[in-house]
Amino acid sequence: MRIVVDAMGSDNHPEPDVAGAVLAAREFGDEIILVGDEKRIQAELAKQTLDGLAISVRHASQVISMTDTPSTASREKRDSSMHVGLQMVGKGEADAFVSAGNTGGILAVATLRQYGLGRIPGVKRPALGVIFPTKERPLLIDNGANADCKPEYLLQFGLMGSLYVERTLGVKNPRVALISNGEEEGKGNLLIKETIPLFVNSGLNYIGNIEPKEFMHGAADVAVTDGFTGNVMMKTAEAVASYLLTLVRQEIMAGTITKLGGMLARPAFRRAGKQLDPNEVGGALLLGVNGVVVIAHGRSNAYAIKQAIGQARKAVAQDLLSAIRQGIGNLAES
Amino acid sequence: MRIVVDAMGSDNHPEPDVAGAVLAAREFGDEIILVGDEKRIQAELAKQTLDGLAISVRHASQVISMTDTPSTASREKRDSSMHVGLQMVGKGEADAFVSAGNTGGILAVATLRQYGLGRIPGVKRPALGVIFPTKERPLLIDNGANADCKPEYLLQFGLMGSLYVERTLGVKNPRVALISNGEEEGKGNLLIKETIPLFVNSGLNYIGNIEPKEFMHGAADVAVTDGFTGNVMMKTAEAVASYLLTLVRQEIMAGTITKLGGMLARPAFRRAGKQLDPNEVGGALLLGVNGVVVIAHGRSNAYAIKQAIGQARKAVAQDLLSAIRQGIGNLAES
Repeated sequence: MRIVVDAMGSDNHPEPDVAGAVLAAREFGDEIILVGDEKRIQAELAKQTLDGLAISVRHASQVISMTDTPSTASREKRDSSMHVGLQMVGKGEADAFVSAGNTGGILAVATLRQYGLGRIPGVKRPALGVIFPTKERPLLIDNGANADCKPEYLLQFGLMGSLYVERTLGVKNPRVALISNGEEEGKGNLLIKETIPLFVNSGLNYIGNIEPKEFMHGAADVAVTDGFTGNVMMKTAEAVASYLLTLVRQEIMAGTITKLGGMLARPAFRRAGKQLDPNEVGGALLLGVNGVVVIAHGRSNAYAIKQAIGQARKAVAQDLLSAIRQGIGNLAES
Repeated sequence: MRIVVDAMGSDNHPEPDVAGAVLAAREFGDEIILVGDEKRIQAELAKQTLDGLAISVRHASQVISMTDTPSTASREKRDSSMHVGLQMVGKGEADAFVSAGNTGGILAVATLRQYGLGRIPGVKRPALGVIFPTKERPLLIDNGANADCKPEYLLQFGLMGSLYVERTLGVKNPRVALISNGEEEGKGNLLIKETIPLFVNSGLNYIGNIEPKEFMHGAADVAVTDGFTGNVMMKTAEAVASYLLTLVRQEIMAGTITKLGGMLARPAFRRAGKQLDPNEVGGALLLGVNGVVVIAHGRSNAYAIKQAIGQARKAVAQDLLSAIRQGIGNLAES
C-alpha cells in the first residue's frame, strides 16, 4: 500500500506530519510518500531512524495555509502539497492521501477532477464523516463540507457513512439515523421532513431521528446531518468539553485541599481525557471523491497523524471506494 | 405585580412548581396565582408556611403533558392550566406566565390570540431566548420555536434578544452575532448569507458571525440562529457536559487513590457544577408574544421555578413588551 502524506498540513508542519508518517511506516509497513517542501522534509527525516522504512519524498513548491480561501487554494496554488498529493492518488500512483491541512482547501482541490480526484460517478456532494470520540464511536456525516443540503444529498451521506462504518469499523448492518431537534414524528426542519421518506425506502437500516444526546450514547452507528448543523454540533461539543475541563481545573486550583484532591485524581482525568481525545480516532474521511482522503485536525501531533494514516489504510484495504461506487449505483437504480 | 404560575408544568408537578411559587412570593413580595388542579395545589400549599404571602389558586381541569403534541394541546385541552393561565395574562388579569411544562404546548397556546396571547403586531415568529450558563451568560435565540426560518425572522430574533438583554440584564448596546460554521466571510449556509445584509443595515450592534466556542466565551451578548440549529446546539452542550462529568466520575471511582482525590476535590466540582447549572439562569423567554412568558426546564426544582419567576418579574418591571412593540415598529419603518 502506498499512502501520500501532506508534510505541510498541520499547524506545526512539517514536524508532526513527518514524525507521524515515520510512525506509520514503522507500524504498518506501508510505503509512505511525503509531499511538500523537500528541504524541510529531509531536515525532519534526518532526525528520525529510518532503517528499512519505505519513505520517499515528493517535492511541491507551494503550501496552502489555514487562512487561504478554498477558491484561492484550488486555483492559485497548483503546485501545493495538496494538489501534488491528490493528483498522485488520482493518477493511481498512490492509494490514499492524508493531510492535517485546511479542510476547505482539501475539499476544493479533491473535488476538482482536473487537479484532484473528482467525484465518484453519481455522488452529488462529497461529505466529511467524523468519528465522535465517545465510547461507542458513532459516525457523524456531514461535518461541514456542505452548508446547504438537499434530501438526496443526505441520503447519499447515509449510504456512504453506512458503508464506511461497515467496512472499516466492522459494524454489521449499521443503524443509520437523522439528527433532529426531537425524536417524535413531526419534529425536524423541512429538510429532515423531506428526507425521512427517502431513508425509509432506501434499504439502509434507518432507525429514525435522534437528538444529540442519543447520538453521543451510540443510539445509531451513523448519524446524518447537513454540514452546517454537523459543524456547529461538533464545534459545540469541542467547546463545551474544553470549557468544562478548564472550569473544573480552575476550581480545583482555587483551594489547597481541592488542589491535593486534583493531584490524586489526576490519573482519572487523564483516562477520561484519553477516551475523549479526538487524536485517538484520527481524522475525517472525505467520502464521495474518487480516492481515499483522510483529513486530520490542524493541531494533530505525530500520533494523530499516524492514526489518520491507519484510517486511510483500512479504507484502502477494505476497498471502501468500490463499495461506495456500487452502493451509489444501486441507490440510483432503486 | 401579579404572576401566574402553572402548577402542572414540571415533570414532578405540582410539588416543585408550588414550592417555587412560595419561594418567589416570599422573596419578591409579588402576588402569585397558581393555576391547575385546585385540590392538588392546596395539598401542596398545606405543606408550606404562607403567612402574609399573596398566593391564590385558579382551578384548571386539564393538564397538557410532556407527550401531548402541540396541536392536541392547543385544540383539545382548552381548560388546561396553560390555557387558563395564558388567558389570564391575555385579559390583563396578570402580568406574566411561568411554566415548566411542554414547550411546544406553551408555544402553540400562547401564539393563538383566541386562547392565549397572540403575537405582538409586526412580529413574524415568536422565538425562545435562553441564557447559556457559562460565566458570561450570553443569550441564544431561537432555541427551538422555529425549525425553519427566513432572514426576516432572524433579524427580529436579534432585535428582541437585544432588547431583552439590554432591559433585563442591563447590558448596554448589546453585541449581536449570527451563529455560523466559521467567522470568515463566505462561511455560513444560505440562510446566514442572506441574513447578514439585514443585520448590517439594522441599527443593531451587529458584530458578525461567531462559532460555538466564541459564543460560549461571551464574544457576543446575543447569538442568533434558527430554531433547529439552536436546539441541536443547546442539546449538544447539555449532552457533552453530562457525558463528560459522568465519565470523569466513573474514572475517579475506579481507583482507591483517585476516589480519595475526588472526595477532596468535591467542593471544586460543586462550584463548577453550580456555575454551569441551568437552574441558576431560570428558563427560556418566549419573545414576540403579547405577554411575558417564561418556560422553565421540565426537570426544574423549586429553586429553578423561583428563578424563572424572577426572570418574568424583571421583564415586567422593565416593560420589555413595550420595548419590543416599539422596536418591531421601528424595524418595520426603516
